[in-house]
Amino acid sequence: MHYGYLNGTVAPVDQLAIGVTDLSLLRGYGLFDYFLTYNGRPFQWDWYWERFQNSATRMHLSLPVTKDETYAIVMDLLERSTRNGGTDVGFRFVMTGGYSADSISIVKPNLLIMTEDIHPVPTNQYEQGVKVILDDYVREMAEVKTTDYKHVILMAEAIRAAGASDILYYKDGEISELSRSNFFIVKGDQLITPDKNILHGITRRTVMQLAQEDFEVVERPVLLSELYDAEEAFTTSSTKNVLPIVQISDLTIADGLVGPKSKFLLERINDLVATW
Amino acid sequence: MHYGYLNGTVAPVDQLAIGVTDLSLLRGYGLFDYFLTYNGRPFQWDWYWERFQNSATRMHLSLPVTKDETYAIVMDLLERSTRNGGTDVGFRFVMTGGYSADSISIVKPNLLIMTEDIHPVPTNQYEQGVKVILDDYVREMAEVKTTDYKHVILMAEAIRAAGASDILYYKDGEISELSRSNFFIVKGDQLITPDKNILHGITRRTVMQLAQEDFEVVERPVLLSELYDAEEAFTTSSTKNVLPIVQISDLTIADGLVGPKSKFLLERINDLVATW
Repeated sequence: MHYGYLNGTVAPVDQLAIGVTDLSLLRGYGLFDYFLTYNGRPFQWDWYWERFQNSATRMHLSLPVTKDETYAIVMDLLERSTRNGGTDVGFRFVMTGGYSADSISIVKPNLLIMTEDIHPVPTNQYEQGVKVILDDYVREMAEVKTTDYKHVILMAEAIRAAGASDILYYKDGEISELSRSNFFIVKGDQLITPDKNILHGITRRTVMQLAQEDFEVVERPVLLSELYDAEEAFTTSSTKNVLPIVQISDLTIADGLVGPKSKFLLERINDLVATW
Repeated sequence: MHYGYLNGTVAPVDQLAIGVTDLSLLRGYGLFDYFLTYNGRPFQWDWYWERFQNSATRMHLSLPVTKDETYAIVMDLLERSTRNGGTDVGFRFVMTGGYSADSISIVKPNLLIMTEDIHPVPTNQYEQGVKVILDDYVREMAEVKTTDYKHVILMAEAIRAAGASDILYYKDGEISELSRSNFFIVKGDQLITPDKNILHGITRRTVMQLAQEDFEVVERPVLLSELYDAEEAFTTSSTKNVLPIVQISDLTIADGLVGPKSKFLLERINDLVATW
């Protein structure tokens, strides 16, 4: 059973509810973050906390808890949620504009922290790679982890119809990111990833760090036209780690098979989390 | 006391709450509408219902209630909310992506209908007009009444600091709308209002109808440069009706006083609502 914390109250997630004057419900005003635990420990806690704090600042909301208090809440929820088995969970943090008497002004944010099931990527997707489709779009405030994901939800049908697993955003010929994960291509010993209009993923940062010894890691604009001679492509996120992309709309990446460098980086991150 | 309806349950608004796996909370996936009653009757009910239905379709959500069922809910909530005095209220409809097990897929929408206090515009604003500031922005899916208003909430400080009451959006030299209301200028006998990147306001539609006999009503792109020789400017919304704008950032509209045509249209709509 999953547990959550809402403004100081701890309860099973299905018993937690938020009043209907909350600004996330009325005005879409919210931010979030999401991470996993491995071996009963939050993965990259320092980096996730730093990002959550940064999103809050960018959304003009003051965090009602310190880092240490939040860590204690996280460990308490983890203990409750794994009492009947299991070791690890997903954690979702959500902070909203709070209850508003006039439906537009911020008074005091609401903070929700809850555990969730982890939905692992099917093994065959790592072996065969996935298809994504191109989408001419850029997220508003892409660098802030707001809750604004209406676009990808509206695209769900188109993604399914194309037999794809996600969308890859581009604008004016430049690639940015997937709907909820980052994008990399491999060319020779270069590992290249877009640097603009993206959310700075923690798994992206982890992979860049892990790759440093064996690759030249380059953050720079990536043009759509570069997909034609990319040797490999993959996406990174907390639930996907390193997931190979073998097709982008009508374009097959190289020979359409999962490449050795994506496999190598997936093994590196799998090693890291196994001993976290 | 205000009352609300949430998926079939009717209760005082402060007792209504939505589960924390709702897609508006997690993903900003929601739409809404807002109208007033006059003399105990919903103003322009047919038009508001039509717009709400259209927003739902554009957001891929099926309405769980018919127009007649909804009208009955509205009249019941109005009766409960005015039992201890008063005749009229504001009504807010909110429809969200509903509870989602995987935090991204729509299963079944949640529908909330609630009454609210009406916040009338102070009389002196009608007499003296208001100031707004220009903002280089266009709402994503502007023509759909989504709940995405994070931008104006983020701008609240800038609006206050400028002594303004709202922001006026423009992009590439073209004016679209204010943060939650439409925009008109007067030139001779022409009443001109932008036709693109706007939410089609019900008060806008009402004013255009009321103006037909006395004005040439023109819907077309309005350039920033046209503000320099506009004789009058005003904004329309359900709570503002016709509110004169006398200053836009550093530019004073005409002589900076509320003009006769804005006053005339305000009187016309005040007459209409008085006998609604």
